[in-house]
Amino acid sequence: MKNKFNLNSIRDSYDDSILSPPDLINECYERIEKDSKDKIWISLRKRSEAIKIAELVSTSSRKNKPLWGIPFSVKDNIDVEGLATTAACPKYSYFPEQSSPVVQALENAGAICLGKTNLDQFATGLNGTRSPYGVCTSVFNDEYISGGSSSGSALSVAKKQVCFSIGTDTGGSGRIPAAMNNIIGLKPTKGTLSTKGFVPCCPSLDCPSVFALSVKDALEIAHIAFSDSKKDETLRYDFQRGNFQIQKIQERIKIRVPEDKQRNFFGNKEGRKLYENLLEKLQEDDIEIITIDFSMFLEAGRMLFDGPWVAERYSSLYKFLIKNKNAVLDTTLKILENGQKWSGKDVFEAQERVKEIQHFLESELGFNEFLMTPTVGLLCKISDLKKDPIGSNSNLGYYSYFANILDLSGISIPAAFYENGMPFGVTIFGKAFEDSKVGFVAETLLKNFPIHQE
Amino acid sequence: MKNKFNLNSIRDSYDDSILSPPDLINECYERIEKDSKDKIWISLRKRSEAIKIAELVSTSSRKNKPLWGIPFSVKDNIDVEGLATTAACPKYSYFPEQSSPVVQALENAGAICLGKTNLDQFATGLNGTRSPYGVCTSVFNDEYISGGSSSGSALSVAKKQVCFSIGTDTGGSGRIPAAMNNIIGLKPTKGTLSTKGFVPCCPSLDCPSVFALSVKDALEIAHIAFSDSKKDETLRYDFQRGNFQIQKIQERIKIRVPEDKQRNFFGNKEGRKLYENLLEKLQEDDIEIITIDFSMFLEAGRMLFDGPWVAERYSSLYKFLIKNKNAVLDTTLKILENGQKWSGKDVFEAQERVKEIQHFLESELGFNEFLMTPTVGLLCKISDLKKDPIGSNSNLGYYSYFANILDLSGISIPAAFYENGMPFGVTIFGKAFEDSKVGFVAETLLKNFPIHQE
Repeated sequence: MKNKFNLNSIRDSYDDSILSPPDLINECYERIEKDSKDKIWISLRKRSEAIKIAELVSTSSRKNKPLWGIPFSVKDNIDVEGLATTAACPKYSYFPEQSSPVVQALENAGAICLGKTNLDQFATGLNGTRSPYGVCTSVFNDEYISGGSSSGSALSVAKKQVCFSIGTDTGGSGRIPAAMNNIIGLKPTKGTLSTKGFVPCCPSLDCPSVFALSVKDALEIAHIAFSDSKKDETLRYDFQRGNFQIQKIQERIKIRVPEDKQRNFFGNKEGRKLYENLLEKLQEDDIEIITIDFSMFLEAGRMLFDGPWVAERYSSLYKFLIKNKNAVLDTTLKILENGQKWSGKDVFEAQERVKEIQHFLESELGFNEFLMTPTVGLLCKISDLKKDPIGSNSNLGYYSYFANILDLSGISIPAAFYENGMPFGVTIFGKAFEDSKVGFVAETLLKNFPIHQE
Repeated sequence: MKNKFNLNSIRDSYDDSILSPPDLINECYERIEKDSKDKIWISLRKRSEAIKIAELVSTSSRKNKPLWGIPFSVKDNIDVEGLATTAACPKYSYFPEQSSPVVQALENAGAICLGKTNLDQFATGLNGTRSPYGVCTSVFNDEYISGGSSSGSALSVAKKQVCFSIGTDTGGSGRIPAAMNNIIGLKPTKGTLSTKGFVPCCPSLDCPSVFALSVKDALEIAHIAFSDSKKDETLRYDFQRGNFQIQKIQERIKIRVPEDKQRNFFGNKEGRKLYENLLEKLQEDDIEIITIDFSMFLEAGRMLFDGPWVAERYSSLYKFLIKNKNAVLDTTLKILENGQKWSGKDVFEAQERVKEIQHFLESELGFNEFLMTPTVGLLCKISDLKKDPIGSNSNLGYYSYFANILDLSGISIPAAFYENGMPFGVTIFGKAFEDSKVGFVAETLLKNFPIHQE
């Protein structure tokens, strides 16, 4: 097997019979064991069991199995049959009767789930430090956060322990850890991929997310995970369906960016420079850069982390919280209990305002126009989180919180490196259902940012 | 002019030059003055002013003016330039700078607005008695309620003072007064017709409604009022658009009805008999009647009148209420202030539940299947409302409250008469965006209920 670890490189190895699924799974376990101090996994299948599954897959036809023999991991707030779902809260833990439909679809396509990955408890956090199963750190430098909440998912991919991972994204959990570890983080249009069998965070916003080593892989995996069962109440019941097949845009691409004074890097001057260099490079490559008033994105974002949507987090978990306060991390508990302060009136007022902003965007964002922001504005150390667990976390979400509230699609991609070797990512956002176009833009831009290794 | 007062009969009179728009407007004012004790109007244009408008219309080409010279009325919670908007609360009253887009569209098509009609204060009520501008009563018997909240709108049409009226419908306000006065009440799919320039009640649910003397007229008026401005945040920004052109269904129509024990007539045995006779008649005419579990419709309905959506009513008006408690009717104030008791958590929980029910219906209601219920289960006297203003009102909404929460389209049509001469209506409900099919079913059924006079 070559050093590459994307879908096609694995398929090529299988084609050439250089490798069999049990060989690959064995190799994955070698890597996992080598890095076992990393707190990536909350539960891992026994190696023997995983190899048995791989042997079973090996004997099946590859026909209609696009993920035949492909190892993946699943964030531990998503049900996988045979493994506990903990949401990083041992007391909350349960053994699900069946895998979530997303996992089922991937397994039906031949993929092999190795285990469940670490996360910020109840997916509440963007940093990867809020877990009783240990603190995750960036693969590039263990002084820096891994990003979260899908910390373990991103790390398992960045470390090439698995080929892809399914995470979740409510306010950035599928994008921030991608950026901190130099991989792809796809956040599909909400309601296009099922969240059935997920521990709810904000069920009106929660999305499955895909971590992968290439945009092409991320979209293919979303495409395979997609189903349109009318009986699945986590899916939109409207009329347009998800589309994850990369769609080429023939016309000139226009990239909208926050106005200069609205670009907040929280004192991180190098980050600003990296972002602005990228914009210059894109302009040289005939991509049109146009500013957009970012204030409404920020307004929508605040509604998530310091507004009425905190009540939705509370709504999802209050039955558990009432009886199990002591089982929840202090910071997590504090955030969730804040949800009690929002009234019904507050929620309806905010939802009306969101509708206004969505309509503004609908007319403001023209055809083939996409928003591009840094995925994270600051470079955040573990020690920063310890000093100010809630404030630092909010800063991490400056460019991510708004996406699901405003019904956008988005992909975080690697874009540059800091001088200290830490990665810098950007997110491409499109309107709802534009995932396939956003995929194309992300691929196009990656060609302009030639720093990425699959 | 013949006794008929639908669009085509008026057009025919114009075609034959039997009538000119000023003649017709004059005739309308004769009728209005004859019934001036009826509390139908909150503000009426001066006859001379209306005739001036009619003269102006007369001199314009009829081309592209499908409503050339057609008189209409507008519920007084909808802005019409030059007339106050009161929402039946004098203290709330203001003079709008411009007409709402729906009114503009109708006027652009040549229609002539004569004035603003009475309603239950802030469109909160289904009975027509909650107005400082006087109590409305059924055109058939003044001991009985007119239905509300669009009481004056329905009466102005039933009395043939105007050809059609624009009302609103949040929980039944566009259907109940249609049934109580033996006319058509169209409640379009929410978000397909603009509610810009409307006094908000529950903005996530509010719809304009159309009162008319025929199904064909109601759909044509909705079609004309329809616009799809992307900048109008009261319109859905999703991808399917409203359709109000009656769509013929070739296949056998299936009508779903509540299970026997779920048909609540509140002791009104004759109403039950009328409804069941209708079902028998339909079966004889080869329409399939199938029961549906009505409990989820009722559950959704309760969320509107005694659940978290009351917080949305409060949210729309609390800024006014805080300063002007004394300006609001006791019953209305009591209902609105109840909105304070619902928390953000309650709202999000209820919205999740609604999503579940919507998905259930999406799969349960098959192709060309429609729900048909009584529009109102009970025959309600003015005196009943006085005895129990909130309880009686809730009973009126048993078959109507759920429609907008569950994202249904619907039309109330005349269906039968009680022995005492009072009318009995039924509502045909379809899924979202099925207005054009619901229109066809309503027309088909009306042929089976040959009691209606245009």
